[in-house]
Order: sequence, then C-alpha cells, then structure tokens
Amino acid sequence: MNSSVVDSADRQSTRARLEAMGRAARAAARAVARADTGTKNRALRAIAAHLDAQRAQIAEANGRDMQAGRDNGLDAALLDRLELTDARIDGMIDGLAQIAELPDPVGEIEDLKYRPSGIQVGKMRVPLGVVGIIYESRPNVTIDAASLCLKSGNATILRGGSEALHSNGAIAACIAAGLKEAGLPEEAVQVVDTTDREAVAAMIGMPEYVDVIVPRGGTGLIERVSRDARVPVIKHLHGVCHVYLDDRADRDKAFNIALNAKTHRYGVCNAMETLLVAEGIADEILPRLAAAYREKGVELRGCERTQKILSDCVAAGEDDWSEEYLAPVLSIRVLVDLDAAMDHIARYGSGHTESVVTEDYTRARRFLSEVDSSSVIVNASTRFADGAEYGLGAEIGISTDKIHARGPVGLEGLTSQKWIVLGDGHIRE
Amino acid sequence: MNSSVVDSADRQSTRARLEAMGRAARAAARAVARADTGTKNRALRAIAAHLDAQRAQIAEANGRDMQAGRDNGLDAALLDRLELTDARIDGMIDGLAQIAELPDPVGEIEDLKYRPSGIQVGKMRVPLGVVGIIYESRPNVTIDAASLCLKSGNATILRGGSEALHSNGAIAACIAAGLKEAGLPEEAVQVVDTTDREAVAAMIGMPEYVDVIVPRGGTGLIERVSRDARVPVIKHLHGVCHVYLDDRADRDKAFNIALNAKTHRYGVCNAMETLLVAEGIADEILPRLAAAYREKGVELRGCERTQKILSDCVAAGEDDWSEEYLAPVLSIRVLVDLDAAMDHIARYGSGHTESVVTEDYTRARRFLSEVDSSSVIVNASTRFADGAEYGLGAEIGISTDKIHARGPVGLEGLTSQKWIVLGDGHIRE
Repeated sequence: MNSSVVDSADRQSTRARLEAMGRAARAAARAVARADTGTKNRALRAIAAHLDAQRAQIAEANGRDMQAGRDNGLDAALLDRLELTDARIDGMIDGLAQIAELPDPVGEIEDLKYRPSGIQVGKMRVPLGVVGIIYESRPNVTIDAASLCLKSGNATILRGGSEALHSNGAIAACIAAGLKEAGLPEEAVQVVDTTDREAVAAMIGMPEYVDVIVPRGGTGLIERVSRDARVPVIKHLHGVCHVYLDDRADRDKAFNIALNAKTHRYGVCNAMETLLVAEGIADEILPRLAAAYREKGVELRGCERTQKILSDCVAAGEDDWSEEYLAPVLSIRVLVDLDAAMDHIARYGSGHTESVVTEDYTRARRFLSEVDSSSVIVNASTRFADGAEYGLGAEIGISTDKIHARGPVGLEGLTSQKWIVLGDGHIRE
Repeated sequence: MNSSVVDSADRQSTRARLEAMGRAARAAARAVARADTGTKNRALRAIAAHLDAQRAQIAEANGRDMQAGRDNGLDAALLDRLELTDARIDGMIDGLAQIAELPDPVGEIEDLKYRPSGIQVGKMRVPLGVVGIIYESRPNVTIDAASLCLKSGNATILRGGSEALHSNGAIAACIAAGLKEAGLPEEAVQVVDTTDREAVAAMIGMPEYVDVIVPRGGTGLIERVSRDARVPVIKHLHGVCHVYLDDRADRDKAFNIALNAKTHRYGVCNAMETLLVAEGIADEILPRLAAAYREKGVELRGCERTQKILSDCVAAGEDDWSEEYLAPVLSIRVLVDLDAAMDHIARYGSGHTESVVTEDYTRARRFLSEVDSSSVIVNASTRFADGAEYGLGAEIGISTDKIHARGPVGLEGLTSQKWIVLGDGHIRE
C-alpha cells in the first residue's frame, strides 16, 4: 500500500471512531438530560474525589506529556499551560465543588401564563443535547468543560490538544469513574484519544450527533472550525475592546478605568486594546495617563493628534485599530465626540466589550443602547466582562456571536428553552 | 463570448449586487436599531397606508405574475398562493397594524442586579442586525417578514420566489415609501429584484453583512440553505408531530384531542402525523377514533397490532413513522407504555411538537421533562403550537433548531441580549 492509501484508511477509521462516539453521546444525552440535580452533583463530587486519589497517576501521565513537549521543542508558555502542578489539580477539584454548588438550570420554568383559549403556556429550560468542545493544550479545560456540560444536562465530546494526550487520558479515567459511581453512563463525557486532526473534521461534521461546537483556542483554530462546521458554533473570536473617555468624564474615574482596563492583565480578551479620547479632555488627561502607562512599560501607538500631545508616542498604523495586542501595547485615538467614538467602535471593534466614561446622562444612555457589543459598560473597567464577575459562577467561554449565547457563556448558555403547554382536554376550534 | 463566460459574468454581477445590498443593509441597521418605538410604528402605519393607496398598482403587478405563472404552467395551488386578492391586501394592512400594536422588544432590560464588586449587571435586548429571509411564492410574506424585522429593529434583505417578482416589486415600493415618510433609511428593507438563483448563494455566503438567515419554504430549499450557509440559520425543517394516548387518559379528552390534532387542518406543520396508543386503551379507543377519522376521509396506516384492532387499516411501512404527510393520512402505533412512546418519539420525531393525554401526574411530568421537542403538551391538541396561540402576536416561522430560537419565533426570536454594566468608576482589583 502506498502512503496515501494508508492515510485515507486512517482518516476513515478516525471518522468511524468519532461517529461511534457521537452515537454513544446521543444515547447518553437522554440519560444525562433526565438526571436529577442530586445525581449530577454526586457525579461532580465523585470526579473530584477520584482526581484527588489519582494525583500520582495524573502527575505521571502529565510528566510524559511534558517530556514529549520538551523533546518537541514546545516553548515555555505552552509548557507552562500544559503542566499539571498539585495547585492546578487543587484548582480542578475546587472548580468541581463550585459547579456542584451552582443552581441547576435544567427544568426551570418561566412565564407560565394562561392564554385566552384556556391553555397555560410557558418555557422550560432544557439541555442542548450533545456539546462538542475543541480546545488546545491546557488539560484543566477538560474538567471545566466536562463539569459545566454535565451540570447543564448535556453529554459532551472533548477534543483536547495533542500535546496533552496522556494528561487528558488520566483525567478522563477519573471522570468515567465518577460518572459510574453516580449511576450515570460513562459515555456522558467522552475524551477523544487520538491526535489525528481528522477527529476535528469529523466532530464538526456530524449534526446528527452533535448539537453545538465550542472551540476554545487561538484564532486559527476558531476560524477553521467556524468555516467548516456543519454544526452550530458558539465562538469567541477577537477581543478588541475600547474605552471612550468623554469630555464630560469625571477625570479620576477616567484615569483609573483607562489604566485598569489596560494594565490589570495584558493577555486577556477583556483588556482594552484601543483608548478613544474626546478632544475636549485629551490635552488634560493624556499626559497624566501616558506617564502611568510608561511606568508600567506599556508601548503607546497614537493617531496624529495623540502624537501632538504625547511627543514620544509612535504613530499608529491603520492595522493597529483592529489589532488584539494581548500585550502591553495600546493604541490611542483622539476624536471629536461620542458619535465619532461609536463610529470608530462600529468600524474597528470585534463586538466583545466597550466602556464609556462620562457623567452625561444622555451620552451614557446612548452608548449603552447603540453600541453593539456583547458587553457595554458605563463608568467601569472592561475587565469586568467575565462570567465570575457577572455571577455566572463559571464560564465555558465568551461568545462574540449574536445568535444564541452572547458574552460570557455559563450553564444557561449550554441550555435552550422549549415551550410547554398544560391543558385540560383543550382543542382548537 | 461563449455562454459559460456570460453565465459567470452574470453570476459575478449578481454577487456584486447582493454585496452592495449587504453593505447598505449593514449601514441602515444601525439607524433602525436606534429608531424609537414611535418611529418604527409610524413607518409600519405609513406602509399600510401606501398599500391601501396603491391597490391598483399592486393588482396590476400581481396580474402580470399570475399571467406569467399560467403561461409557465404553475399548478392551481401555487397560483392560489401567488394571487393578491383585495382580501389578502386587507390582511397585509391588518398585519401591519397588529405589529405596530405589539410591545417593542428592543431595549428591554432584564435582571439588572448589584454584584459584590459594586457594579450593576443586567441584560439588554437588542436587534440581531441584518436578517436575510428567503421564501417562496406567497407575496404577502414580504410584508409579514419586513414588518417583524422592522419592529424588532433589524434591517432585512428579502428574497421572494421568482414567480412573485412583480408583486414583490410593487409591495417593496410601498415599504420604501413608508420608511421614507417615517424618516428611516429605505435600505432598512431591501427586496432582491433578480430571479437569478445565484442571489440566494450570495445572501447565505456573506456573514460580514448578514447576521442570520430565515428560510421559509419547502424542505428542499431549507436543506440547501442549511447545508451551504456560512451565516447562522433559523429554520423549520419538518413537523412530524405525535399524540400519545396513555392508558390513564380521560377517554373523551383522548378522543377529542386525537381527532382535533389530525383533522382541524391537514397542511400545517403542527398537525399530528402519528398517533401513539397505549395497549391498555387501544381496544377501547381505536375503533371509536377510526370511525371518526373515516368520516373525515382520513386514510389510516397502522402497525400490526393496530391492524388487528382495525381490520380495514393498511399496514404502515418503516418510512411512515418519519413521514410528514401534510394530508389526511395518519400512521398509528400501539405501544406498551409511556417509555415506549417516548422512545418512538426520540427515534422518529422531528423535534417539533408532541402531546400526551393522561390523567397520571407522574407520567405527565415525565413526558413534559423528557421529550425533547420545541413544544411539549399535556392534555391539549398539537394545533396550539403556534405564535398567535402562544401570545407572540405574529411569527416569522417555527424553529425546530435548539440553538437561539426554538418553536414559534416572534419579535423576541429576532433579537439577542447583550450584557450591560453600570458602574461609578469601578475597576478590578
């Protein structure tokens, strides 16, 4: 056999394997969907107990991944994300306990009302069914994703990064043991155990078995999955977040928020990437802010007007306005007013999170209504756009889509609502 | 030039035209999104006034479509759907008035609460942006779709059936005049005026300009759109609805509901297509029901056990269980119990609407929780699964998807929720 025949046979066997996993997930989904809150919580706590008991095995598996990673020349940042220290295992155990504590969204009934016909109509929250999650190297995502899907009554198929294969295998064994102990089918959480890339193509191409795909990782992965998926995708693409300092801003709030939004953490999607400043406040606030940014080592790239105020600021190119730096770099633009700021955001923003700082009632109200982003903020830092800060308890990601879930996606984003009707023999006349 | 060059040039020009429409829609969407309720309602009423004033022009345009339809040998049912009688124009005018009366979903704020950090977090309902609607011959859909999208703050691109080209053009002129009168951009509602099929491919392939596609029409159209779309799709595929008569059903309720669900109207998606009967009640209820069905001219196709009870019933083939008849035909299956009925529904159903008839509390509760369909009903006819019956006022379709909107989709289904945060200078520590 020549190699392309072998490749094609491998691809087919990966596809067949994923299809078998899909069928098993679909069957398990009915059992998880009707599992009561107590059963699901018992499974979560049992998984935590197994993680705790299997620390040695997990460390051994992770050691193998780390060694292979070093041998393959993975960079330090990737190796750091791959490593499962004792503290990270504690983190996974705590996460499971927290999700067990969250209210169960499944079965919640809303708006049950009588209609003139005499029927009662309302909505019941129900699981989506089978959730496919595709992620990169962090093995702790395996527990995060599995526990959120389980609590929301979904079956799940997890496909982690190939570098974490052994670590994920060890974690998967704990999940399976925990599910079994609680009387739930082990197929409720399945971890793909092949590094064949064809597995991703198979997962996103079987709408009969998978109801939604959540890709978590770099832009390349997310764009590829979105382009090729035949299944709905909940995705988080870019976070090009803006803060607009209005000329009617309280100066101290403006200073604090602009500083916090950029420098609290750099590598996060809700960090500010572009600062927009009203011309009426620029001369006064920019020098003070620039000094503070410089002290933190933030590189500033400004429009022409910004450069006139900050003489050592480099020129921002057109590309800077749509760049997600995820680094100590900030682009700054001086604009006429609120409308110009909203135009800039509509043109260059990614629909993630934008904040206005102003004391003007009408401008705050307009920004809140008119800016089309997943989080719109008045007089607070963009860093608040986060599932934990919003009270969701935990999040599977932040969606920059408009359909289904938008912004931080917690348990509720992994569910849907069906209509329920209660009658007493009612018929349509 | 050979014909394939001409074809390719035509395709390119259609694509360029649709892209220009997309760009214009995206620009208009911001204006419609921030239009207040009064402005949108004035536009709806102005469109109604123009329809009323332009009856002669609409009739003339429709006459041309009808003549072309007759010349092209369209069947009587299609010609009937195409025709715009005075009564149908009245219907469009009434529809506009009704939608003007509905509460505006845009800007509605839910769950605004203080968080421990001191920020207030809530959700604001906002338009989706640009909605693309692809439909078949009925020209009155043009008004239904345009008015629902306008009221929910969306710009829309409408692509009707090619047989209705002139009728839709006359209606589009009324819409444009009404929008202008209310001070809204005419590009807020655009009707595609080419019959080139490439227009559909272009519409579903530009996620930068179109946020969601709603296909309305036959299964072929919907499957094609779902398969090829690069934009999220809200779709209604099949309605294979079930009624399960439990052995603890009240006999009269069972009889009335089973009769109504099948015979109230045949060509509708929420009509029952398969009747499931518990073995404990089959001998008693089936002969009585069969007599009533026969009187209405309903053809019965049964499983073996049904055939033993109803000697003149033909045998149902495996295909019958997943068939959407949309006709006076009914498949009947006798089953052991509720679990067998729910298994049948999970295997053959389309996730549209299912009803159980029972007086048993636990069985009713289980059916309600465990059946995974867009509407789940206890002791009432499947025919209630409808936007008007549910109090939505009007619907753009019934979604059998689980993502985003499920079941009857009204104004709310054409919106999304963004997170809003109100602070007072808050920063993350």
